[in-house]
Amino acid sequence: MVKDNIIILTCINFSEMKEGLFMYKGWEGFVPGKWSSDEVNVRDFIQRNYVPYEGDSSFLAPATDATKKLWDIVMDYCAKERAAGGVLKCDTSIVSQINSHEAGYLDKSLEKIVGLQTDEPLKRALMPFGGIKMAEQAAAQYGYTVDPEIHTIFTKYRKTHNDGVFDAYTPEMRACRTAHILTGLPDTYGRGRIVGDYRRVALYGTDYLIKQKELDKSLIGGDMRPDVIRDREEISEQIKALKELALMAERYGCDITKPAETAKEAVQALYFGYLGAVKDQNGAAMSIGRNTTFLDIYFERDLAKGIITEEEAQEIIDHFIMKLRIVRFARIESYNQLFSGDPTWVTESIGGMGVDGRTLVTKTAFRVLHTLDNLGPAPEPNLTVLWSKRLPKNFKAFCADLSIRTSSIQYESDELMRPEMGDDYCIACCVSSMRVGKDMQFFGARANLAKCLLYALNGGKDELHKDKKTGLPLQVAPEYSPITSNEPLDYAEVVKKYEQMMEWLANVYVNTLNLIHYMHDKYSYEALEMALHDSKVGRFFATGIAGLSCAVDSLSAIKYAKVTPVRNEFGLISDYNIEGDFPKYGNNDDRADDIAVWLVKTFMNKIKKHYTYRESIPTMSILTITSNVVYGKNTGNTPDGRKAGEPLAPGANPMHGRDTHGALASLESVAKLPYDYSRDGISNTFSVTPASLGKEED
Amino acid sequence: MVKDNIIILTCINFSEMKEGLFMYKGWEGFVPGKWSSDEVNVRDFIQRNYVPYEGDSSFLAPATDATKKLWDIVMDYCAKERAAGGVLKCDTSIVSQINSHEAGYLDKSLEKIVGLQTDEPLKRALMPFGGIKMAEQAAAQYGYTVDPEIHTIFTKYRKTHNDGVFDAYTPEMRACRTAHILTGLPDTYGRGRIVGDYRRVALYGTDYLIKQKELDKSLIGGDMRPDVIRDREEISEQIKALKELALMAERYGCDITKPAETAKEAVQALYFGYLGAVKDQNGAAMSIGRNTTFLDIYFERDLAKGIITEEEAQEIIDHFIMKLRIVRFARIESYNQLFSGDPTWVTESIGGMGVDGRTLVTKTAFRVLHTLDNLGPAPEPNLTVLWSKRLPKNFKAFCADLSIRTSSIQYESDELMRPEMGDDYCIACCVSSMRVGKDMQFFGARANLAKCLLYALNGGKDELHKDKKTGLPLQVAPEYSPITSNEPLDYAEVVKKYEQMMEWLANVYVNTLNLIHYMHDKYSYEALEMALHDSKVGRFFATGIAGLSCAVDSLSAIKYAKVTPVRNEFGLISDYNIEGDFPKYGNNDDRADDIAVWLVKTFMNKIKKHYTYRESIPTMSILTITSNVVYGKNTGNTPDGRKAGEPLAPGANPMHGRDTHGALASLESVAKLPYDYSRDGISNTFSVTPASLGKEED
Repeated sequence: MVKDNIIILTCINFSEMKEGLFMYKGWEGFVPGKWSSDEVNVRDFIQRNYVPYEGDSSFLAPATDATKKLWDIVMDYCAKERAAGGVLKCDTSIVSQINSHEAGYLDKSLEKIVGLQTDEPLKRALMPFGGIKMAEQAAAQYGYTVDPEIHTIFTKYRKTHNDGVFDAYTPEMRACRTAHILTGLPDTYGRGRIVGDYRRVALYGTDYLIKQKELDKSLIGGDMRPDVIRDREEISEQIKALKELALMAERYGCDITKPAETAKEAVQALYFGYLGAVKDQNGAAMSIGRNTTFLDIYFERDLAKGIITEEEAQEIIDHFIMKLRIVRFARIESYNQLFSGDPTWVTESIGGMGVDGRTLVTKTAFRVLHTLDNLGPAPEPNLTVLWSKRLPKNFKAFCADLSIRTSSIQYESDELMRPEMGDDYCIACCVSSMRVGKDMQFFGARANLAKCLLYALNGGKDELHKDKKTGLPLQVAPEYSPITSNEPLDYAEVVKKYEQMMEWLANVYVNTLNLIHYMHDKYSYEALEMALHDSKVGRFFATGIAGLSCAVDSLSAIKYAKVTPVRNEFGLISDYNIEGDFPKYGNNDDRADDIAVWLVKTFMNKIKKHYTYRESIPTMSILTITSNVVYGKNTGNTPDGRKAGEPLAPGANPMHGRDTHGALASLESVAKLPYDYSRDGISNTFSVTPASLGKEED
Repeated sequence: MVKDNIIILTCINFSEMKEGLFMYKGWEGFVPGKWSSDEVNVRDFIQRNYVPYEGDSSFLAPATDATKKLWDIVMDYCAKERAAGGVLKCDTSIVSQINSHEAGYLDKSLEKIVGLQTDEPLKRALMPFGGIKMAEQAAAQYGYTVDPEIHTIFTKYRKTHNDGVFDAYTPEMRACRTAHILTGLPDTYGRGRIVGDYRRVALYGTDYLIKQKELDKSLIGGDMRPDVIRDREEISEQIKALKELALMAERYGCDITKPAETAKEAVQALYFGYLGAVKDQNGAAMSIGRNTTFLDIYFERDLAKGIITEEEAQEIIDHFIMKLRIVRFARIESYNQLFSGDPTWVTESIGGMGVDGRTLVTKTAFRVLHTLDNLGPAPEPNLTVLWSKRLPKNFKAFCADLSIRTSSIQYESDELMRPEMGDDYCIACCVSSMRVGKDMQFFGARANLAKCLLYALNGGKDELHKDKKTGLPLQVAPEYSPITSNEPLDYAEVVKKYEQMMEWLANVYVNTLNLIHYMHDKYSYEALEMALHDSKVGRFFATGIAGLSCAVDSLSAIKYAKVTPVRNEFGLISDYNIEGDFPKYGNNDDRADDIAVWLVKTFMNKIKKHYTYRESIPTMSILTITSNVVYGKNTGNTPDGRKAGEPLAPGANPMHGRDTHGALASLESVAKLPYDYSRDGISNTFSVTPASLGKEED
């Protein structure tokens, strides 16, 4: 509690804190506040201590010799990794846990920030808790065989997330999965998209965090119903994870039980928190949060004290980012196909504006982005600038210049997210916003709405997949009455059937996710990541849709053109004769765009009808950056003229080549989609070439 | 479905059954019914097929030479076991699971019924799922060390029941446990008291049972809430367990996938079912059910066919019982202390009357009891006769004679239980009745009501245990206002405080059990035992009380005599000056007995107030056969004049030596206790000597 600058410590059970005004050396020189009394409150610490930076990039320092040497070592490892077919080495005997490996180094004498996922650089860890089969397949793909003992343990004694899910799946859920109307479900891999507040490790140290968690646990009581018991057990697991984390740091000779005392220690502690998370979990998207403003406070303090130079500051950041660039997971081929590579989504959210009107840009925002120069461009970490018109002009110019030169920055609208999320949110994966340490997400992959439209036409029969026994089209959805007429499709009739089919799809989708997340909690709980969240955490139930523009254009075609069904040998509608033109989504034409808005709202409303696991708040994303290609492969001919197997458009993009009215019209269409109905984010993959913006002046 | 003796098979998903009137050779000669159409219904099979036996024991055959030789081998092993200090051998490397061991034999050439818990007779299995510490302690006690690899697995990868419980316990629960006001809680050992319907293995074979379970699973749907997901996952685990059981039998050269075709096969299949259970679970009380009437049907069929002689029938039973006599578990010292030995409670419930008035006594009831002659007396299996006045005279005479000679029969009132339970219930452990395959129990150990009374007097402070830090009396219960006067205790004031303290105790007790059973399901689920239950199973939440008579006499003393408190150095009431006499429970004196009835009803009503796990039905037992000694050690001086540390009375017994009005008066007092409020059973340990029944004629 802070009253008129006098700190009154009201620490429950924190008696040792009363010893002095500040109980930790690491906090000296900081403005106290709620964060330093009896709660964990990183935002409060930031708000009271950070220094916005409106200046330009001229202060930045180039890479030091140590950085260059170290980066050469990394480059060398990466070259070897490529030469080895994409994976340098796989661990086959040590099950990855926070504290499972001995300390590993690139070059101990050069590294300012230490810590590897295993004991060797780029050696991929063995992570079977999500599914032993997947872990074995991933290893086998690169010529490695997991120890038979590990196999025994994870089949006889320790059940995995994947086994749990498949034990409980209904035949309908399995059919939806096989037919890919539900796709990318996190049932064979870690759900990810949970971002620990790794800053807490630096600001508080693990001892303080453990005490807070013990206090939190003592506050969960009442009748011992399953949810209460579960919550108490989870906090116990979180406490164990924090203890393990401290031991992991100790192996590197670092003490993270107490608050960090320098910028270097702060970066190191924060990175250890993240490292523990990626040793514990192979999640789809292991993002790192929003750290530049926080870390800048430590750099400013050290610079003011004169115990660090700009060169040293940049070196710490460079070495930190280097470590994030070599985060790796052993993943199966189908996962890599889905994501067109092997992404880790180490998203770092940078900049943005505070709710008090000050910018959250600091010198360290510059420093982190400057790694794109010092180390060269790279897709990871996924440096994401939270964009606002009000960002400092110098910073905007700096970003624009870097973007032009490196194509390595992602931008997201801070203006859109701040009203919902406040000013201490971050991006998990590509677009999912959550308040750091306060929200988590049950990642939900996506439902294919284009395919759902085909199910509506064909009474729930799949247009591509056959029943293996009968050879007939697979009945995936309920056998609702199909379109039987061979006349041109009637819009009203189609919409009615589509609504009915979406009703079914939303139901089976939500329930599939309920089951998956129950099992993930049961068999692969993210104890460390959740230890770095508030105990009373907000949970998002993140559904997603694919095939939006394809479905919209198909409906538009049916409404505005003449679409006559063509039937295959099974009597199924398998193709379409399209006569006449129709408005297409992506041209700022309300006739098509209104259908898009209707579709987003309608499906989200159907999602909301259902029970969601752990009182989570249902959200939806319109987000596929690469997986639209795989989804398209599993979707038959569509009434918009798209042929079977052709890609759908990514995220909320118009169908490829159909946005013929210029970039602005295309963006206007996307901008009409209601954010309130797709809170988990809307992605629009947009390559800006000079021509997109208008004619060039010669 | 059976209509006028014509069987119409209405098997859902059981299409192969339609091939013939009976689809299994094993069912030939049996009267069909519901049991043989589309449901698992052993009672229906019994009712349609069994032959009550009203004759005498003259048909019984003595032990065969093979039986004698085999029994000598068993005796020899048992002698070696005693010589080795109680445990012959401990498995230290193979984790016991249904199918973990190679086949083991006593003497393969002699054994009619095969199957051992491990690969050697009396070698105790390693069962760490309940708790690795306990498994290691148990082994260590007898000089064995569990493999370090097993330790690693069960600390790093596989959490145990015990770890789960202690992760979620509140400090209050731990204090209640330390102070022994809650005692014998199944948090360090398997809860047991779950009786699989092992007859199903014989009657149906595992293939049929698996199909039924698959059908059951398909019927659990709707919103995927945690309980629905859990139920679906559990049935998946049950199916796996049945498959494992068939593989286990295969190792012994037996096919239990199909119905048993002979009596020998039936006994063998039934025993395999039980064996699988005791390999899977080290439960407190692994009872076997109610099997004599069922098995008799097979013996009668074989005898009628002339393919078996009485000698052979008896030999099969003798060998079966022999196997049950050598069931062993590795248990920790404190467990053995609590139970004054190393009991397994392989309770077999025998006889009783059917709801249609026919007796359920068959020749096989005689055969099983006859093992007490053929093999000699033994405490296990716990042969329990379900007693009714209406039992056949010859059977009653046979039992009486055997009881006099062997002291090895337990009797329980069929008349008391049948109205609630029907005629296919059995006894789990000593007194807990449940319908075979239809009910299960969450075993709940007991609350010490004598100690609770002392807490009421002392405002929740323990009369024996000290706080380790302060050295002051441990505050276990809430600090309600204590008795502060040093005048003689006022009955009304004491009762008021006692009610308040029972209110607290019932709450913490029920919640402790809720937590324990949640964790048992999570980390040590009895998949095989539950596979041999209906999927929609009735669950009892079995609480228990200890110290009834001590509490009653204490209250009676306060009410009818003059009890003046004596305080110790901490101001706690620690002793009592009792002036005058008072009525004591156990003398058919309503003044005391009414207090007993009030106390039972009052505590049970407080138990009922609370949420109980999985919609279980709260019950209560007044049952301690041996553990009253340990409970007494943890209870201070009581107002009835009992001294600190002296034993409480077992179960519902009067305090030792206080029932001075003869056997009948003592029994009359016990008989007043309301069964409706103690449905889990009331035990009265009663040694009948001729003198108890009156004066001897010289």
